[in-house]
Formats: sequence, C-alpha cells, structure tokens
Amino acid sequence: MSGDLFAKVRRYESYAFRRDLEAQGELPYFRVMQGPPTAVTMMGGAPRVNLGSSNYLGLSGDARLTAAAHCAHQRYGTSINGSRLMNGTTELHLRAEEAIADWFGEEDALVFGSGYTANLGVIGALVGEGDIAVCDAGDHASILDGARLAPGRLLAFRHNRMDRLETLLRRASTTDAGVLVVVDTVYSMQGDLSDLVTVTGLSRRYGARLLVDEAHAVGVLGPDGQGVTALAGLADGVDLRMGTFSKALGGGGGFVTGPADVIDFLRVQARSFLFTAAAPAGGVAAALAGIEIVRSAEGEERRARLAANTARLREDLTGLGFELAPVPVTAHGVPVQTPILRVPAPDDATAARMWKLLYDEGVYVNVALYPAVPRGQAQLRVSVMATHTDEQLERVVAAFAVLARKLALHPVDMVAG
Amino acid sequence: MSGDLFAKVRRYESYAFRRDLEAQGELPYFRVMQGPPTAVTMMGGAPRVNLGSSNYLGLSGDARLTAAAHCAHQRYGTSINGSRLMNGTTELHLRAEEAIADWFGEEDALVFGSGYTANLGVIGALVGEGDIAVCDAGDHASILDGARLAPGRLLAFRHNRMDRLETLLRRASTTDAGVLVVVDTVYSMQGDLSDLVTVTGLSRRYGARLLVDEAHAVGVLGPDGQGVTALAGLADGVDLRMGTFSKALGGGGGFVTGPADVIDFLRVQARSFLFTAAAPAGGVAAALAGIEIVRSAEGEERRARLAANTARLREDLTGLGFELAPVPVTAHGVPVQTPILRVPAPDDATAARMWKLLYDEGVYVNVALYPAVPRGQAQLRVSVMATHTDEQLERVVAAFAVLARKLALHPVDMVAG
Repeated sequence: MSGDLFAKVRRYESYAFRRDLEAQGELPYFRVMQGPPTAVTMMGGAPRVNLGSSNYLGLSGDARLTAAAHCAHQRYGTSINGSRLMNGTTELHLRAEEAIADWFGEEDALVFGSGYTANLGVIGALVGEGDIAVCDAGDHASILDGARLAPGRLLAFRHNRMDRLETLLRRASTTDAGVLVVVDTVYSMQGDLSDLVTVTGLSRRYGARLLVDEAHAVGVLGPDGQGVTALAGLADGVDLRMGTFSKALGGGGGFVTGPADVIDFLRVQARSFLFTAAAPAGGVAAALAGIEIVRSAEGEERRARLAANTARLREDLTGLGFELAPVPVTAHGVPVQTPILRVPAPDDATAARMWKLLYDEGVYVNVALYPAVPRGQAQLRVSVMATHTDEQLERVVAAFAVLARKLALHPVDMVAG
Repeated sequence: MSGDLFAKVRRYESYAFRRDLEAQGELPYFRVMQGPPTAVTMMGGAPRVNLGSSNYLGLSGDARLTAAAHCAHQRYGTSINGSRLMNGTTELHLRAEEAIADWFGEEDALVFGSGYTANLGVIGALVGEGDIAVCDAGDHASILDGARLAPGRLLAFRHNRMDRLETLLRRASTTDAGVLVVVDTVYSMQGDLSDLVTVTGLSRRYGARLLVDEAHAVGVLGPDGQGVTALAGLADGVDLRMGTFSKALGGGGGFVTGPADVIDFLRVQARSFLFTAAAPAGGVAAALAGIEIVRSAEGEERRARLAANTARLREDLTGLGFELAPVPVTAHGVPVQTPILRVPAPDDATAARMWKLLYDEGVYVNVALYPAVPRGQAQLRVSVMATHTDEQLERVVAAFAVLARKLALHPVDMVAG
C-alpha cells in the first residue's frame, strides 16, 4: 500500500495560522469583491478605497472596454472553443498581435491565455534538452515554473546579484548549451527593478538570449507605456518581451513579442499556447481597447496622474512615520515611480492586524506574508491607480494616520494581539 | 560563448512541411475564424458548416451566455486584476464553485483560469517531493505538463494498458510514495475511453488517489451532463474530477471538484491558481449560464440531439465508405456516443488535401497530424454539435461524398498530390 497522497492536506503547516486569522476576522485573503476593481470598490457590503488591484490605469471597469468585450462576444461567442492552432484563431487575436508588435516596434507577437501561460509556453519551448534557463531567484512564479517545466536546466542566481549572474553565464559559456536569461523588469514583491543595463550587457557578452517580463510595467512606465526596457533605451539588447493583458491593459490574456522567426517557432511549439483554448474574445477585445487608450494622449495623462498619485501617497505615508521601501532606481540612477508602495510590518500576525485596521477604516490593501516574501519581510502592498481622486487619497492617509497612532500608542496590542 | 538558443528556430524540422502546405493553400492550421463557433461559421469570407469546434451543445454564441458575460463585465470589470488569493475572488467565482460542487455532488470546487492551468495546478500541488504521478501516455498535454512540473516523479503507462498501470501501481506500493493516478475519461485524439472500472479498482486496491479529466465529457455525457464518471456510476471511486468551461459550457476557465479539505489545500497551494489573475468575470458568468442550461430539460434535449446528430453522421460517412474509428464502449460494453468522429487518412499530406477539399465544399473539420497523433495515424477529426440542423448535416454528407469519389477515382492524385 502506498502512502496516502492526501495525508499532506491535513499536515499542511500554514493551515492553523490561516484558520486562526479567519476566526478573528483578520484573514486578508479571499476577501470577496462585490464590484469592479475600480478606485473605490464594494467589499463586505461597504465601499473601500481600492489599493489592492493592478488596475493601475483604471481601465478595467471603463465603459469603453466593457463595450468592446461585449461586441467581441457577440461576434465571436463567449468561448472560442478550440486551440489557436485549429479553430481558435479569430481576426481579433491577429489584430491584437499586430497591435502589440506595432506598439513595441517588434516584428511579431503571440497572444496567450494569460501572462502565466505565456511565460510557461515561451520558456518551455525555447529551453530545450541541454539548454539552460538562467533566472533571478526573485522572478515571478510563472517564470520559475516555465523553467522547471522546460526540458533544459534551471539555474537561479540570488535576487539582482549581477556578479552571480555573470558567474552562471561564464560557466554556461564553456558548454555549447543555449542559454535564456529571464528577469522581471519590475519585481512586484521586492519592489525593485532589474539592473537591465548589466543584464543586457552580460547576456550579449556571453551569447545568451534575454526574455524580460514587463507585467507590472506595460502601460504604466516608459514612453508610450512600453515598459522599463524602452524607458531605459535597451530594446535592442532584449530579445523577447512578455506582458499581460490583465493588469494595466484591463483585459484577459498574455503576450510575448520579438523576432518573427522566434514567434513563429513558438506558435507551433509552445505547449501552453497549443494545448488550451484560445484566449476568450472579450478579454482580448478589452485589451485592444486598452492598448488604444494607453497609447493615446489620454494614456499619457493617466500615467502622469498615476505617478503623481504614487508620489503624493509615498510622501504622506512617509510623513506619518511609515518606513516605506525606497523608490526603485535604474542602473543610471533614474528613479522609477512604480505604482506599488511597500509598508513593512514586523511579522505576519501584525501585518494581518494592520491590514484589518485599514480595512475597517474603508481602505483595502494587499498583504504579503511568508512564503510570498521571505520570513520576517511581511509587508502591506499598496497599489495606486491613476483614477484615485485627491479626496480618496485623503481618506487613505487618514486611515493610515489611525494605524500610525495605534501602532505608536499600543504597539504591544498591535504586535502581540 | 554559449550555443545560440535561437538556432533551433531555424533548424525546426516541421517548418518546411508547414510552409509547403501554406504555399499550396492547404495548411489546415491557423485558419481565421470570422464569426462565432456556431453550427455554421464564417471562414475565408464564406459560411462553412463547422465540424471543428468543441462547442458541442452550441452554447458559445448563445445570446443568453453573451448577456450573462456582459452583465458580469459591467459588475466586475473586464479584468479582475489580481490573484484569487488577494483581490481576485468575486461573488461570481464563489457562485461558480458552489454550482459545480452542487452539480457533481461533491463538497467543494475551485475555478482556475483554464482547464490547462487546472491540471497544472492540481497535479503540481498534490504530487510533492517523493510522490508519484501515474499517467496514461495518451493523457492530455496539460496532465503530462502538470506531472512534469510537480516536484514528484511522472510514470507513464502505455495508452489504456491496464496491466501496465497495475505494474506501476504495484511497484509504487512497495514504497511510501503518495500516488496520484490521472486519466482522461474521453481521449479526444485516440477517440476512446479510459477503462474507469479497472482504473478505479486498481487505484483503490493500491492506495492511490485518482484524478480524472472530463474536459470532453462535461455537459455532454452522463446523467445531468456530469460526464463519464457519473455515467459509469463510479463517482465514489474517483477522488477529484476536473473539467473546462471552454468546451460544452460555452465560457472561459477550468475547474476541479472533490473533498473540501483537498480543495482548500489546493486553494493555497496550486501555483497556477495563486500566481495568475483570476478567471475573467465574463467567461465565468457565461459558464454559469451554460451550467444552468446544461442541467435543465433544454440541456437534456441538446444532449439527445447531439447524440442523434453524431449517430446519423457516423452512419452516413460509414455508408460512403469511410472507415471511422469505432464507437467507444465502457468496460461494461456500453457504447458511448462521444461527439468526435475520426476519419483516418493514409498520411499527413493526404490528410491536408482531404481537409482542403472539404473546406472548399463549405465544411470545416480539424486535422490531427504528427506529433498530435503517432506517425501514420493522421486523421480528420469531426466534432458534431447539438445545433447542427438536418440540412447542414446533409451538406456535410454531400461534401464527404465528393471526397469519397475523389479518393476512389483519383487516389494517386489525392495521395501523391
């Protein structure tokens, strides 16, 4: 008789912690959203200022995107019902691919069902037997999963340690392995940027190819919202860029863009592209409408408003005594106002309590606890939107002021419960 | 200097074959759909009877599902903009999970972004270090990818060879590894069924857990459209059932259903569930509307019509001399009218030519060439819908009659081009 595979379900270590939090009404996870991820949303029967969404430009919930999705469903159905290879390629999918290639100034692009499956499919197809994926240990889960799924090997270097990256690349260069370096341009948990100047330089020097994940940057940063690669003027040093429709663009799906021959190879080799239904028409159409807005003067205004909102909230929270993680800077020392502010917490239990106090004050933020972040690095993750009004941000600051007083007056209560 | 990772792009073996077919206008892949996947759809500027979609009940393109998706987008936005763990759980996602658990008579269910990511997440989370996934070699790509991604080992047995399954299970039972057996209930490429009586019996005898993939059966087969497990009366012997929203249900997403504690474990451990945006509201709402229809008297009628259409087309194509793969039968010898008919072709090039002739006659089918099927097993894959009318099926039979004549009169032309 084998061991029972389900025994682990009962052994699961974080279960008790989660149940305790839930019993106290402090579980920050799986809170039910009762409305769209707009600047203010309904949760628990009350409106809350929403600082927990990657709807950075406020496009999800925008009537133009909703209308575009509806038209697409009327034209192509609510399900595409097949693989892109077979009956799953609509005019809409091709239009989205053209729009992305045009936007990024690349030869071609491929639309996946999600950003997660884009990374899985691209890395899985390119890093073949005998090849090597060299990843930052802080890379998004979808990158690490893609590298694990690939027939080749995964070598990870300590987060943002360029010396370690070079060691791995130098070692790989003594073999005839093909090498794919994969980094996030914005690390949403760590809150910093990849050192793209060094990463592109090392990749070129050692003959490696480079894929960057712009999920949190697309639409938000750089000229035309193209992301950090374009902001840093390094598009020539990056072979492939991927992103998602489901954050700033307000749709559903993911994409990769790059040279036509590589994209064409992925089109018939990426398993997560071939062996799944095509991205539903509604999400693709919404993203197409989103891209149009992102690239317009309105998009420029939204990005400016987002940067201003972020800078203002950073200043106000710092003024209240919160020691926020610093503004990320590029290798050239240019500060990049990513729309994610990180407020440190002493431990997981206190982070949950801080979260609940804000929630009760009408403000929803995210919480990152172990294992999403290393032990001892619990934090509130505050995601700003272009559509937050001054009045809403004032309510946020007022709620954090209550939290600051409580932390100062009753630190033991807050920390020890 | 490492080898160039992109060199494989130019070496890619099937590239030339694909380009040749494309030059001759015979490439059956990536044909552009200009309308919904309904019984007749627009392709290449002309209407074609659509026998190439898994829209088995005709629900994608149904106005009720389109309206449900639109309402959901208006209420929850076109993008959910976050992980289910954080800001990605809406009332709609919970309603869908309740509806699935209720439908299958299970304790709980979990909704993923797609069927592909459901298999990836479930298998990846359950088959831990030291555990074993025992898979049929003919299992869907998402199952094999899930087992490859899992920390544990993948052992595959030759398609439907129950003696091989028993050998693997017996060997595993001498260790303390936890074992997860994973099979499709309907093999969409091979066209046969899993021998569920034997699979459930062996899994129980050797203490393994059993996950079955009902992607092509959900909504289509069994009482209430519950699939093959329920049809065979074996729900007690199956631990977890997964399915997709993107075939018969007409939506977007995937699901797994089973015991509450296992589902709860997956809720915080399945990486493809946690590290990706929640399934977009439109696709979930469409599936919910689909489930309601599937479980109603109308659903029963649609299933009956689908079975009748399939039986009729099978008879007519057989009458024309095509040697269709036989009707799948359960271990009890009960024939199961799956809506997929497979018409064999002598080789890949001829299959493409047969496909093109049908296409020109106004009929769209799918083609399975190597490596989707083993070499020498090229086939046309004909997927029937409940919504095909008698008149449409007559046009299909007429097109196949033209093909039969051509094959009989000019077999060399057809085969050698």
